[in-house]
Amino acid sequence: MDKSYKVGIIGATGAVGAAMIQVLHDRKFPVAELHLFASERSAGKTLITPYGGKTVELFSVESAREMDFVFLAVSGDFAKEFAPQISAEGGAIVIDNSSAFRYDDAIPLVVPEINPEAIGDSKLIANPNCTTAILAVALYPLYKKFGLKRVIVSTYQATSGAGAEGMEELKTETAHYLAGEKVSNKIFSYPIPFNLIPQIDKFQENGYTKEEMKVTWETRKIFGNPNLAISCTAVRIPTFRAHSEAITIETEKPITPAEAQEILSRTPGVKLVDNPEKQEYPMPINATKQYDVEAGRIRQSLVFGENGLDFFVCGDQILKGAALNAVQIAEVIIA
Amino acid sequence: MDKSYKVGIIGATGAVGAAMIQVLHDRKFPVAELHLFASERSAGKTLITPYGGKTVELFSVESAREMDFVFLAVSGDFAKEFAPQISAEGGAIVIDNSSAFRYDDAIPLVVPEINPEAIGDSKLIANPNCTTAILAVALYPLYKKFGLKRVIVSTYQATSGAGAEGMEELKTETAHYLAGEKVSNKIFSYPIPFNLIPQIDKFQENGYTKEEMKVTWETRKIFGNPNLAISCTAVRIPTFRAHSEAITIETEKPITPAEAQEILSRTPGVKLVDNPEKQEYPMPINATKQYDVEAGRIRQSLVFGENGLDFFVCGDQILKGAALNAVQIAEVIIA
Repeated sequence: MDKSYKVGIIGATGAVGAAMIQVLHDRKFPVAELHLFASERSAGKTLITPYGGKTVELFSVESAREMDFVFLAVSGDFAKEFAPQISAEGGAIVIDNSSAFRYDDAIPLVVPEINPEAIGDSKLIANPNCTTAILAVALYPLYKKFGLKRVIVSTYQATSGAGAEGMEELKTETAHYLAGEKVSNKIFSYPIPFNLIPQIDKFQENGYTKEEMKVTWETRKIFGNPNLAISCTAVRIPTFRAHSEAITIETEKPITPAEAQEILSRTPGVKLVDNPEKQEYPMPINATKQYDVEAGRIRQSLVFGENGLDFFVCGDQILKGAALNAVQIAEVIIA
Repeated sequence: MDKSYKVGIIGATGAVGAAMIQVLHDRKFPVAELHLFASERSAGKTLITPYGGKTVELFSVESAREMDFVFLAVSGDFAKEFAPQISAEGGAIVIDNSSAFRYDDAIPLVVPEINPEAIGDSKLIANPNCTTAILAVALYPLYKKFGLKRVIVSTYQATSGAGAEGMEELKTETAHYLAGEKVSNKIFSYPIPFNLIPQIDKFQENGYTKEEMKVTWETRKIFGNPNLAISCTAVRIPTFRAHSEAITIETEKPITPAEAQEILSRTPGVKLVDNPEKQEYPMPINATKQYDVEAGRIRQSLVFGENGLDFFVCGDQILKGAALNAVQIAEVIIA
């Protein structure tokens, strides 16, 4: 009989935590016991899950350490404090969705389709930023085959990046707008209905936002290339839960759209959606709730010529951008 | 006494035509007589305008030729057939908002802040594509001072680009979505509420859409540089009437964000909105119904280094993207 595992989720009441439970179930992860942990505020509540009703337990380091796997879908501050304690000698394997450990050289940052070997015997593994994961899974096979001199990304990011409250604010405030009522904002810096906000996370010294720099820092680490020239403009738009990205690449070797299409058509985690004649291309309404990242609009770059491409990707922010990738990491470990 | 002019507008019932009337009035264009022309379907209707109630007249070439200026806010097919007849020897000066003549070497394509001299003594002048006009006004002063080796643009385009019907579809179908009703689409190829569509206009042989190629073709013509390396990814998003654009440039000479800020702060037609510390940057909610194109998020490019910048612009699609630019062309002619 195959082994099965005790799995704990911290942050199960959020959008990503809930998706982690769903993904574990859908992908038939061998769960022996599922434990949902939270602070006193949520402990005692019962959540309906695909595994049945589950009572949320009060989090303690001791109880989390009894798990085989602990998924963290909580803040970076919480992760920074507790992830090392939970995963210390004799504790659980921790897969952390926050940015707390992503830039720590000692902690692997993993997209399983790209660098599963980075996991090694680490008991703490960082899950990448949503925009990075969605980008990387489609970009990496092109990088491997053709090399990359420059990557320029512009994003169209959904409100789910700010959690369930972000999606709720979009919905509620859009209704206020249409009713001619006052549109307010709490989760976002400005009203989001029928608007866009070209700032996600805090501004850095160099004028980029932290979200934009995450794409640079994390892609470099995941690809194992600390010098990769990659920049991002990160923009929040009024969509619910799929992130889109317009990508321009300059490659080291000549590349054609047909070659890229051929490669992406057989890249695990990517669905090639690139039929202009049928008006088929990646879109949030199709990529939402799908595991695969859609890639399309592939064309020879007008500015980089035969050494460049433009393309467009769209992936579910909560799935490949968070919960799916985290569960895939656990799958690699038990494989 | 200063001269005043007989002005005709064809397509006054549309979003751009209505804005033309408003802009003529707001900018105190010396209008002696205003005539609104339309087909039999609209002729006889009365429109409320800043000049009072105006009865729409049945269009005829003869009556249009009696004007000093005729603004065309109609289809390219109509323009192709009638603009030459209206502007022929002894007729009116025609300023055409369609794409019918933009790529005709004999017809000037004008952004008044950039190439007013191109008008010469032409009696037919083409108004650029909205995305191009909004881009060009901020890009040109950087091009003049630093040169441009490469320009990469990703757009966030409002539904007004598809006319008043586009905006109406966004509003109506968003209400349907929120009410849990079926969301349909007539103007756009796919449902637009809480979605984006990475296709505007038809696909071309090279995989770019016509909207994307318009940015390339028109920027080259307006800048007088047929070899400018510039590419675009054009994306429709669920906003009403301001287009945003993420722009990455590689310059011939080194450039700093401070230099670009200084130049753009005194560029006519541009409003520098670039205060990260105050969370101030271009956004549709602010650029809507403003004449100036907002420019901000200026930073040294991570991929082009000291010879590159990233920045972000946002401009009203109906104003600088159409009606304002057209009226500015007429202002140059009478100056």
